[in-house]
Amino acid sequence: MDAAYLAARCRLVDEALDRFLPKPKTRPATIHEAMRYSLFAGGKRLRPILCLAAAEACGGSVESALPPAAAVECLHTYTLVHDDLPCMDDDDLRRGMPTCHVKYGEGIAVLTGDALLTIAFEILAQTPASARYGVGAYVTELAVASGSRHLIGGQVLDLEGEGSDVLLTPAQLRYLHESKTAALLTASIRLGGMTANATPAKLAALTDYGQALGLAFQVIDDILDVTQTSEKLGKSAGKDVAAAKSTYPALFGLEKSRKEAARLTKKAHDALKPFAKKGERLHEIADYLLDREY
Amino acid sequence: MDAAYLAARCRLVDEALDRFLPKPKTRPATIHEAMRYSLFAGGKRLRPILCLAAAEACGGSVESALPPAAAVECLHTYTLVHDDLPCMDDDDLRRGMPTCHVKYGEGIAVLTGDALLTIAFEILAQTPASARYGVGAYVTELAVASGSRHLIGGQVLDLEGEGSDVLLTPAQLRYLHESKTAALLTASIRLGGMTANATPAKLAALTDYGQALGLAFQVIDDILDVTQTSEKLGKSAGKDVAAAKSTYPALFGLEKSRKEAARLTKKAHDALKPFAKKGERLHEIADYLLDREY
Repeated sequence: MDAAYLAARCRLVDEALDRFLPKPKTRPATIHEAMRYSLFAGGKRLRPILCLAAAEACGGSVESALPPAAAVECLHTYTLVHDDLPCMDDDDLRRGMPTCHVKYGEGIAVLTGDALLTIAFEILAQTPASARYGVGAYVTELAVASGSRHLIGGQVLDLEGEGSDVLLTPAQLRYLHESKTAALLTASIRLGGMTANATPAKLAALTDYGQALGLAFQVIDDILDVTQTSEKLGKSAGKDVAAAKSTYPALFGLEKSRKEAARLTKKAHDALKPFAKKGERLHEIADYLLDREY
Repeated sequence: MDAAYLAARCRLVDEALDRFLPKPKTRPATIHEAMRYSLFAGGKRLRPILCLAAAEACGGSVESALPPAAAVECLHTYTLVHDDLPCMDDDDLRRGMPTCHVKYGEGIAVLTGDALLTIAFEILAQTPASARYGVGAYVTELAVASGSRHLIGGQVLDLEGEGSDVLLTPAQLRYLHESKTAALLTASIRLGGMTANATPAKLAALTDYGQALGLAFQVIDDILDVTQTSEKLGKSAGKDVAAAKSTYPALFGLEKSRKEAARLTKKAHDALKPFAKKGERLHEIADYLLDREY
């Protein structure tokens, strides 16, 4: 993967986020500072980059895909802020910095997550309609993927599984990963395609790509939690093991988990055939995620 | 106010909410049960009833206004669930029942609020477009009113004022009430008007009505906190005084507060002139809120 491409896309997304977000001094300043603190803490911008790449794979413009790209990053960041709360994962460190509630207090962190979730839809509503898809379709896409049946549903299962000694079955773990990770990744990719007026067939191909990529992403995340240091990850490593969480390495061991990640990446690649040369960036991103070290 | 009218509208809204929400056994069941627990805890459905009445005042149908009506109630309920959390107002009792976090635990309560906020937009996206307003306008309306510059901004100010001995100035208190209460009430009313294709002049009149009504509502809320029992209110009474919160009675005394509520109600009535006979229900609702005892 071309590092300059990723850096340029990161910049583009950061500029869009800066434009879409209220200025830090907007009253009340605390919340607007806290939103920016969490949003500009050095994330990889994976979801927005995928959104933009999917738009291009469908022959659309990056410009039209910037609102959904910014929206999915706001939404992703809210899940991190709430997930880090003492009553959830209780994490003090995120991307190498104090988490939102450590820095601003728990109450403000709850509200910061709420505000990032809300502004995600405000930004998404600014996306230009394409011939096949309007704002209604965009909002439905994001709300369903991030709602109680998918993303939030996954968080519930995660929370309920905590402190339990019983490992999940492979099918349950897959369902958890699909909910917690693959659903929002897939929606990010599909939203990019929708702004580019993707045909139903292309949208289905993007869905297959997103599902496979999302599962691969989470398997690799589980592997990194075991094999990397907190310093490298910018978050507490080894906490899955400490919490006796059900993960791919815990269920299958490291070697089998690595093979599964490679298999899913291959599956993601295969889904890109309808895009031919235009799917190249999406292809490279899948490789990049497989090989990442943090 | 005709009690049968309010009861019928409540039923209509409850049926719509039941249709729009995932069934309680939908996986994962905990979150879907918790969403319904908080949503069907006996709220007055004021915001949805206003939304429907505003649609009718503009010559529109109740049917088209049901999605935004259900959406604003989901949104309102999420603010209650998060507001009751230990790190916020720390309230154990709401509408006479244990609050969501007392019943389901803090983590699930955070996620329940998140899910209700998210589904508000999912439901709103199902609103039919009118000639002047599309889903983009609806989503922008709700997201701005409930976001960091308004509703959530008000919660931030409330949180920051807690434990402080210094009372707010009247201007600051008004700003707090506008943010915390009037913004979402006004958006509920405007959304009803928008589904009925309200002219810009009618929408402006609804905005004036909503602002005045929202402020009146909060002044009355402050008065009831002082004058009523917890039993009657279905929530902890007297807690504003206990927390030394800035309220209308604290700043102006009870008598002046009652006069201010009456003045604001009159202002709300005056705003309804362009609707003539069609604004009757909205007129009655303002009276009803002024005279309420809980």
